[in-house]
Amino acid sequence: MELKDILARVDHTLLVQFAVWEEIKELCDEAIEYGTASVCIPASYVKQAKEYVKEQTAVCTVIGFPNGYSTTEAKVFEAKDAVENGADEVDMVINIGWVKDGLYAQVEEEIRQVKQAVGHRILKVIVEACLLSEEEKIRMCKVVTAAGADYIKTSTGFSKGGATLSDVRLFAGHVGNDVKVKAAGGIRSLADAREFLESGAGRLGTSRIVKLAKENKYK
Amino acid sequence: MELKDILARVDHTLLVQFAVWEEIKELCDEAIEYGTASVCIPASYVKQAKEYVKEQTAVCTVIGFPNGYSTTEAKVFEAKDAVENGADEVDMVINIGWVKDGLYAQVEEEIRQVKQAVGHRILKVIVEACLLSEEEKIRMCKVVTAAGADYIKTSTGFSKGGATLSDVRLFAGHVGNDVKVKAAGGIRSLADAREFLESGAGRLGTSRIVKLAKENKYK
Repeated sequence: MELKDILARVDHTLLVQFAVWEEIKELCDEAIEYGTASVCIPASYVKQAKEYVKEQTAVCTVIGFPNGYSTTEAKVFEAKDAVENGADEVDMVINIGWVKDGLYAQVEEEIRQVKQAVGHRILKVIVEACLLSEEEKIRMCKVVTAAGADYIKTSTGFSKGGATLSDVRLFAGHVGNDVKVKAAGGIRSLADAREFLESGAGRLGTSRIVKLAKENKYK
Repeated sequence: MELKDILARVDHTLLVQFAVWEEIKELCDEAIEYGTASVCIPASYVKQAKEYVKEQTAVCTVIGFPNGYSTTEAKVFEAKDAVENGADEVDMVINIGWVKDGLYAQVEEEIRQVKQAVGHRILKVIVEACLLSEEEKIRMCKVVTAAGADYIKTSTGFSKGGATLSDVRLFAGHVGNDVKVKAAGGIRSLADAREFLESGAGRLGTSRIVKLAKENKYK
């Protein structure tokens, strides 16, 4: 797998709390130059970023992020607001407390409502795998599939663990045909990136791969 | 300062991503039994908690939490939604990237709009002090005061640092007469709690003080 094929599957990501516009702009420039799938940025920068990149790369943002316990109504509002501001892709966090309480129907209905709000745009569902049991992970594959989302995503990058190859394999083996897997959190090398893609990930959430490409002057 | 006076200033807090209703219910029971100022809980539990506690304790929730970079529109929606669900108090996180970009007027306007959404209910503004410079902290005291919020709050508990005595003193010295200080994050002992209150905090965000009271069978 060539570097450009890896880059084409990267959501070039900057989600630190203190990111300023100049950094977001640089992220956008890099995404365009290196041909990543998207930039993944805070919601408060979506409008400005979309005006800046136009159709040169996709703009992705996060909602209910990173703790996942805002109300369904708030997540639906955030999704609509993001789309109005120009977001092409939305990464939402599930309500993990509901999963722990076994309220899978409620989790599914919430994802369905957010998917409805984003329409034909891509919805990725972050399940924060490091906080789930094997059984909960498998249940979430079925829930995400039934709710009509486009991706199941491993991690926010803000909890105690990131993507693991075993989770990516597990998810790839249990989601429906129309659902892809996004690995995020802790992807630090080209070798990591290749392994995650070969294990079944369709997207990678990371800022590191573009940095590596840049340092090595690969394109 | 007696224990009951300390407890009366505690927002009894449970904001982990995986809290289940049984734990929230227990938190509510403890808040009522030990006479804390409020329970501080995820937005998705506010309605259920308010129905459970009625007027026996205040219900506080968090918005734009913990990263602070959702849009102003989303924060205003979350605030209204929380109030409709019965929240008596709302703790919002500021947009830290805007502070780093010097966009204080925008930060102030956002707080003002959220305050308008919560009306007479208490609004606390979390500035995530561990990510700010001394100058930014002082500027935020003025911004929070001008925007008409009720409290400035040190920390979310989800970043790299919690409340410090020096920040509480700094805030207490720079906010207007109508603004109080809430210290949150890392308050682990009665000695801590007393020191924070004596340094100028009007509220403490912690789950630890009730636990200590319980273990020692103080009331």
